[in-house]
Amino acid sequence: MMRLLVQCPDRPGIVSQVASFFNQRDLNITDMDQHSSEVENGIFFMRLEFQADLGDLETIKTDFEKQVAKDFDMTWRINSSEQKKRMIPLVSKHEHALMEVLWRWSSGSLDVEIPMVISNHIDLKKKVEGFGIPFYHVEVDKKDKSKAEKEILKLTEGKADFLVLARYMQILSEEFLDNCPVRIINIHHSFLPAFIGANPYKQAYQKGVKLIGATAHYVTKDLDMGPIIEQDVARVTHRHSSEDLKEMGKDVEKLAFARAIRYHIEDRIIVHGNKTIVFS
Amino acid sequence: MMRLLVQCPDRPGIVSQVASFFNQRDLNITDMDQHSSEVENGIFFMRLEFQADLGDLETIKTDFEKQVAKDFDMTWRINSSEQKKRMIPLVSKHEHALMEVLWRWSSGSLDVEIPMVISNHIDLKKKVEGFGIPFYHVEVDKKDKSKAEKEILKLTEGKADFLVLARYMQILSEEFLDNCPVRIINIHHSFLPAFIGANPYKQAYQKGVKLIGATAHYVTKDLDMGPIIEQDVARVTHRHSSEDLKEMGKDVEKLAFARAIRYHIEDRIIVHGNKTIVFS
Amino acid sequence: MMRLLVQCPDRPGIVSQVASFFNQRDLNITDMDQHSSEVENGIFFMRLEFQADLGDLETIKTDFEKQVAKDFDMTWRINSSEQKKRMIPLVSKHEHALMEVLWRWSSGSLDVEIPMVISNHIDLKKKVEGFGIPFYHVEVDKKDKSKAEKEILKLTEGKADFLVLARYMQILSEEFLDNCPVRIINIHHSFLPAFIGANPYKQAYQKGVKLIGATAHYVTKDLDMGPIIEQDVARVTHRHSSEDLKEMGKDVEKLAFARAIRYHIEDRIIVHGNKTIVFS
Amino acid sequence: MMRLLVQCPDRPGIVSQVASFFNQRDLNITDMDQHSSEVENGIFFMRLEFQADLGDLETIKTDFEKQVAKDFDMTWRINSSEQKKRMIPLVSKHEHALMEVLWRWSSGSLDVEIPMVISNHIDLKKKVEGFGIPFYHVEVDKKDKSKAEKEILKLTEGKADFLVLARYMQILSEEFLDNCPVRIINIHHSFLPAFIGANPYKQAYQKGVKLIGATAHYVTKDLDMGPIIEQDVARVTHRHSSEDLKEMGKDVEKLAFARAIRYHIEDRIIVHGNKTIVFS
Repeated sequence: MMRLLVQCPDRPGIVSQVASFFNQRDLNITDMDQHSSEVENGIFFMRLEFQADLGDLETIKTDFEKQVAKDFDMTWRINSSEQKKRMIPLVSKHEHALMEVLWRWSSGSLDVEIPMVISNHIDLKKKVEGFGIPFYHVEVDKKDKSKAEKEILKLTEGKADFLVLARYMQILSEEFLDNCPVRIINIHHSFLPAFIGANPYKQAYQKGVKLIGATAHYVTKDLDMGPIIEQDVARVTHRHSSEDLKEMGKDVEKLAFARAIRYHIEDRIIVHGNKTIVFS
Repeated sequence: MMRLLVQCPDRPGIVSQVASFFNQRDLNITDMDQHSSEVENGIFFMRLEFQADLGDLETIKTDFEKQVAKDFDMTWRINSSEQKKRMIPLVSKHEHALMEVLWRWSSGSLDVEIPMVISNHIDLKKKVEGFGIPFYHVEVDKKDKSKAEKEILKLTEGKADFLVLARYMQILSEEFLDNCPVRIINIHHSFLPAFIGANPYKQAYQKGVKLIGATAHYVTKDLDMGPIIEQDVARVTHRHSSEDLKEMGKDVEKLAFARAIRYHIEDRIIVHGNKTIVFS
Repeated sequence: MMRLLVQCPDRPGIVSQVASFFNQRDLNITDMDQHSSEVENGIFFMRLEFQADLGDLETIKTDFEKQVAKDFDMTWRINSSEQKKRMIPLVSKHEHALMEVLWRWSSGSLDVEIPMVISNHIDLKKKVEGFGIPFYHVEVDKKDKSKAEKEILKLTEGKADFLVLARYMQILSEEFLDNCPVRIINIHHSFLPAFIGANPYKQAYQKGVKLIGATAHYVTKDLDMGPIIEQDVARVTHRHSSEDLKEMGKDVEKLAFARAIRYHIEDRIIVHGNKTIVFS
Repeated sequence: MMRLLVQCPDRPGIVSQVASFFNQRDLNITDMDQHSSEVENGIFFMRLEFQADLGDLETIKTDFEKQVAKDFDMTWRINSSEQKKRMIPLVSKHEHALMEVLWRWSSGSLDVEIPMVISNHIDLKKKVEGFGIPFYHVEVDKKDKSKAEKEILKLTEGKADFLVLARYMQILSEEFLDNCPVRIINIHHSFLPAFIGANPYKQAYQKGVKLIGATAHYVTKDLDMGPIIEQDVARVTHRHSSEDLKEMGKDVEKLAFARAIRYHIEDRIIVHGNKTIVFS
């Protein structure tokens, strides 16, 4: 199955042109979802699933650019579900987000390849390798993070379609983000934009909130402020200690993280400015 | 704004034909949502919003039938948001579901006309009339319900596009349903198919459930078994008495009922067999 | 039914002493809930329901202070459910939060007296009076708010056990808060501490959040930062406009507001520092 | 930490007597939760946490029975958190519920011992042993289940404080239940009492529900009708296939199952008739 994602200035006739393109090639459209940001003069977003042979993909791409995309000034991509994306997780010591992902992957729920896991700590080595996945320990020198970042860039070069920060407790530098060619998904352990930065559960506890949350988002240079993909919450009471919030928060983080990754894998997300369109 | 709802056997080219139809008439499609029940040989469902003058509606309908719908064997309808639907609520003594609806209507949140309210009790007369809505009291003779039902059919004839049962505690006869030309939405105070029939909160209490629910559905001849439109739940504990469940259930009922009505008003629902497609 | 609320430094023997006190007077304890902030040296919180004649209330109070409270350095109060609290809502033009409250009150779901409604706009006069509740219009001079605030203090003096801000779009001055002898509950239309201040739905829309929220809290001098009583959220998507968020948010606000008021009425809340203990 | 669970006919003075008992022994009560099923003549339920040395446990038990429990005709138990409960999971081929539990256990989130896992299939042997837990394969002869059941009883004899059915697809016979001396927790993949029996997701799909659920309950002789411990739901739409419901349902099952087990481990559950009191 193929997935087309399109974003372009809205104007009449887009749907008709796109649908004709596939109809003329006898490519069956099995799902189509569309959104316009405004009734007039907005941005047009579309996700379309169609059936085609993998061998025809390149021709379809070339034709689509020439015959449709160019006219409408489209930003677009077509991916095949037969070509699994490669995901590399970065992790520190907290294991729950990583294990959730590895677990879903090992049980066939997450249609992705995981060429390696990278960590700044050695702690999870055995658990990761138990899944048959190579584990790389890249220590971070607090005085000079750049060395570690360069090593990560080198390790992942050409091997990842996206990175995920499964509670990687290091802030990535602007330089790293400039040089990293792929998207990065982070799981933040709070309901953003509340409790940006360190120790959000402690912040939440001190504030006395009645719901705790987690936010999965793409990483940008603004700390914890990149486009939000998915959020979820759980109800808490005064009975819960700061430690309880942490423990209960894990379940929320795991679900939000896993859903965000699945949306990314299935080409359901278009980033527009600082927001996401998620065709879920 | 116009809304087209389509249901037909799935086959290649439908989207393309529909989109062309609107494009050729310079009618701008502002939203489009589509679903196929199977990858191959399924049923195709579509909801499409487009901009057009109300004056052109009849021509568009005639042309659409001739040029598109006939070929694909479509069941379809086009409604204009400018033509408000007329909704008649039936109620007994429990006021919360009715009041929720009248309230949303009076504050402009529910884009509908309410020509009258019908009740088998006199209790809510004053409250209904306080909204400037005529109130009809149609008493039900327990030995012969048919008289009341005939009166309701007569009162609503030609005046309603749909009826809603806002906790109307009478089971409508097959004869009534055969003769009622419009859809009827019921709010059932349980998470169907659990707790069909009378006193669901008491049943739920005795069963010791940890969640209570409400279900809004279209009425069919099978008691409480018609196509489900919307459901919601609330968490309860052993501390809650049967009375508490009733009270807490009201909030769940109100929300599920109001959402189901809004989906119906905005032409977001297609009924297929005993299930609904809700383009929410 | 009587309700005792206690807060004091934790130490062994409190429960035993309190329970003995009621047992010796043959006052049946029907519900008891307790919380200690820490295993050792924390703060002890308790809510206790017991059966007693209203006529004995004063004697019980005097005895409790002498025989129990004093020894343990307790902050405490006993209220009878037979003495309804008096609540005065302040509102601007947005009606949903106010109407929700009046509605629940009129249907008997909210065990409270409402001696009046105060608004800085005339818009809701008719609707409020339709409930048989006096409506006072207190215009706010933007250059000098103190005049209006003084009028509100005078109007409510001796007539309110607590105030509620049902979307009252004026920030109350420190002077007002210093002179207002009763608690004030506010409903803020966001998931605090995210989106403090004006136009939270617009802020939420621009940030692209996937959940919107509402927070009911006690008012303090820190804008939108008082002790949180209740919070709730609703899921939103990219399809929802800023207007949609506003509309959907109303349902969340109404429920969080109504629940917070009920907790307050039923003496379920103890404020400790900037947090609440809610014995729900 | 010790936990006392009490159930007895309600009458004045219980709390006072219990609290005095602990106070006289200088045993600090750190948490206390109480519930009466009715205002008068109901059943009294209580959970109490207190600090004591494990070495004093037997004396405390003996004294409590003599000095308090006997008078009030109490059913009661005291457990120490230092004595970990032993849990034996039974599983078939679906791994998600089992793995969730093993995973939480291995990360220290579930304070329990797991002496073995028993399955009627060999499939999960390697995964279970990867956690360092013995795996026993007990094949079920469809014509004569009693042989397998006897083997399970023998394997678990004296080694389990409770069993959990982590999607064990065999119905346990009345004989087994009569002879099994410990509680059994089952996770049913539907929102009971809807969709009792086989293939609940298929049933839910055919019914077109808008929410799917899972129910964790104690096993009794009535199939899927034992006392409910915990339930949860997830929202679904017409877009979700029967397969999708199964997949999404896993997350709901896992959470409801893990929470129910935690409540059991932490002595938070009292079973009364066909219902549970969960002091969560």
